[in-house]
Amino acid sequence: MDGGLPPITLILGGQRSGKSRLAETLIEDAAGGGLYLATAEARDGEMTDRIAAHRARRGPDWETVEEPLDILEQIVEHAAPDRPILVDCLTLWLSNVMAAGRDPGRAVEDLAAGLEGLAGPVVFVSNEVGLGVIPANALARAFADAAGIANQRLAQRADRVLFTAAGLPMVLKGRPL
Amino acid sequence: MDGGLPPITLILGGQRSGKSRLAETLIEDAAGGGLYLATAEARDGEMTDRIAAHRARRGPDWETVEEPLDILEQIVEHAAPDRPILVDCLTLWLSNVMAAGRDPGRAVEDLAAGLEGLAGPVVFVSNEVGLGVIPANALARAFADAAGIANQRLAQRADRVLFTAAGLPMVLKGRPL
Amino acid sequence: MDGGLPPITLILGGQRSGKSRLAETLIEDAAGGGLYLATAEARDGEMTDRIAAHRARRGPDWETVEEPLDILEQIVEHAAPDRPILVDCLTLWLSNVMAAGRDPGRAVEDLAAGLEGLAGPVVFVSNEVGLGVIPANALARAFADAAGIANQRLAQRADRVLFTAAGLPMVLKGRPL
Repeated sequence: MDGGLPPITLILGGQRSGKSRLAETLIEDAAGGGLYLATAEARDGEMTDRIAAHRARRGPDWETVEEPLDILEQIVEHAAPDRPILVDCLTLWLSNVMAAGRDPGRAVEDLAAGLEGLAGPVVFVSNEVGLGVIPANALARAFADAAGIANQRLAQRADRVLFTAAGLPMVLKGRPL
Repeated sequence: MDGGLPPITLILGGQRSGKSRLAETLIEDAAGGGLYLATAEARDGEMTDRIAAHRARRGPDWETVEEPLDILEQIVEHAAPDRPILVDCLTLWLSNVMAAGRDPGRAVEDLAAGLEGLAGPVVFVSNEVGLGVIPANALARAFADAAGIANQRLAQRADRVLFTAAGLPMVLKGRPL
Repeated sequence: MDGGLPPITLILGGQRSGKSRLAETLIEDAAGGGLYLATAEARDGEMTDRIAAHRARRGPDWETVEEPLDILEQIVEHAAPDRPILVDCLTLWLSNVMAAGRDPGRAVEDLAAGLEGLAGPVVFVSNEVGLGVIPANALARAFADAAGIANQRLAQRADRVLFTAAGLPMVLKGRPL
C-alpha cells in the first residue's frame, strides 16, 4: 500500500520532541488506529498523569496493552496486517529490563532477532539520551550506553528510521515521508 | 525579497552550537542589522560576561532591548519590516516565566497566538534540552518538558525551522538556506 | 581517489551513537586500515574495558598510538597519504587539556591552525554534549561550552562534517556519503 507502513519503523527523539505523536499520526494515516503497547508502569503520580494524557490524546480506534518487560511476546501475539503496533517506548523498556536485573544487551539482541516475519507492522518510539554532558553517575552512564546500543541495533533492523526535533521529522533511513 | 526572512523563523540547537550567530547572520544578510531582544538578565558574573560577549560580537547596526518576561509586548511594539527582531532566547524566557510563578504552557500559547500579523520578521533562538539522560531532578524534568512543548508549538507556528550543530544548520521546515 | 577521504573529516554524535565505528568504516573503505590515535588513558576499569573493546573491534590493519594531550604533534608526525589517522576523541582530549590546566580555547585554535598542509587525511570523532538540560554544575557548563566551541571550530576547518544518531549518518557539510 502506498503511504503504508514498512514492517519496522524506529522513531528517535528527545524528551517532548513529539515522537509519540508522530508515531500515532503515521499509524492513524496508514490504518486509522492500532495497538498501543505501553512499557510504562504507573508507579507514581507524575507517571500516572503522563499515561492518562497519552491515552486521552489517542482516539477510540486504539487499544492499549501494558507490558513493562516481555514486549516481544506481546508484539508476536498481537501483530496483524491491519492493526499496527506502537511500542512506546523502547528506552523505558530497557530501563525496566535493567531494573529487573536482566542483561540489556541480550534483551535487545533477542528483541531484534524476534522481529523477523511478523504478521504486521510495528513502530518503535525511543529516546535519544546520549547528547548531553556525559553523566558523572556510573549507573546513568551505563544506562546511556545501553540505550545507545539498543537504538543502533534497532536502527540496523528497521526499514525506516526517523529523528524528531520540535515535532518535525528528519529521515535517517528509508523512504522519505 | 529574495533571500529575505520569512515572518517567523525558529533556530534550535544545543549549548554553544552556533545558533545565536546563525540568527545574527541571517538578519544581517537580510537587513544589515536588527533589534536584539535579550531575555537574559545579568544576575551574576558568568551571565554578565556572556551578555557582554554577545553584544561585542554584534556590530553597531544592532539595537538591544532587555526583557526577561513580557517578550510578546516588545515584539509587537518593535516589529518593523526593515528591522528584524532576534529573540535570544526562548528557553531562558521560559525559565524566567516559570521562576516568576507563571504557567509556561499558557505563556507559550499566548506568545504563539500573538505572533499573527506582525509588522516585521522575528527570529527566535531556542535551546534543545531534551536529548541527554532524563534528569533525576523533578524540576529539571518539568523544565525539559516545558521547553520541548514550547519548541514544538513555535515550530508549528514558524515558517522556517533550523537545527544547528557545530555551527552548521539543517533545515527542518521551510525553504532551504 | 573516488570514495577517498577528504583532508579533514569531523564526525559528531552522542554517547554510543556509532560515531567511532563510522569513522573506522570510512577509513577501512578508503585505505584498509589506519592509525588509531587514542586520547583516552586507561585510568580505571571501565575505561580499560572500553579501550580494549575498541581495540578488539579494529582489525590487524590498524596501529594504535595513545596520546592524551599533544595530539597535533602526533598527527603531524604520523600523517601519510595511504594511512589515514583516526583521532578518537576530540572531547576527551579537550577534557585532558582542561584537567592539565591548559586553556582549551587556545589549544583548539592551535590544533585547527596546525592542520594545514598535512601529508594525509585525518578523521576526528567528537561528542556532542550540549543537547541535554544545561548542567547546574559550573564546571560541567564550562566543559560543555568548551566542547561546543571546539566542535564549531573544527567543523569550520573540516572538509566534511557528519552527525551520527543510532549509527546512521547525516551529512552536515561536504560531499554526500
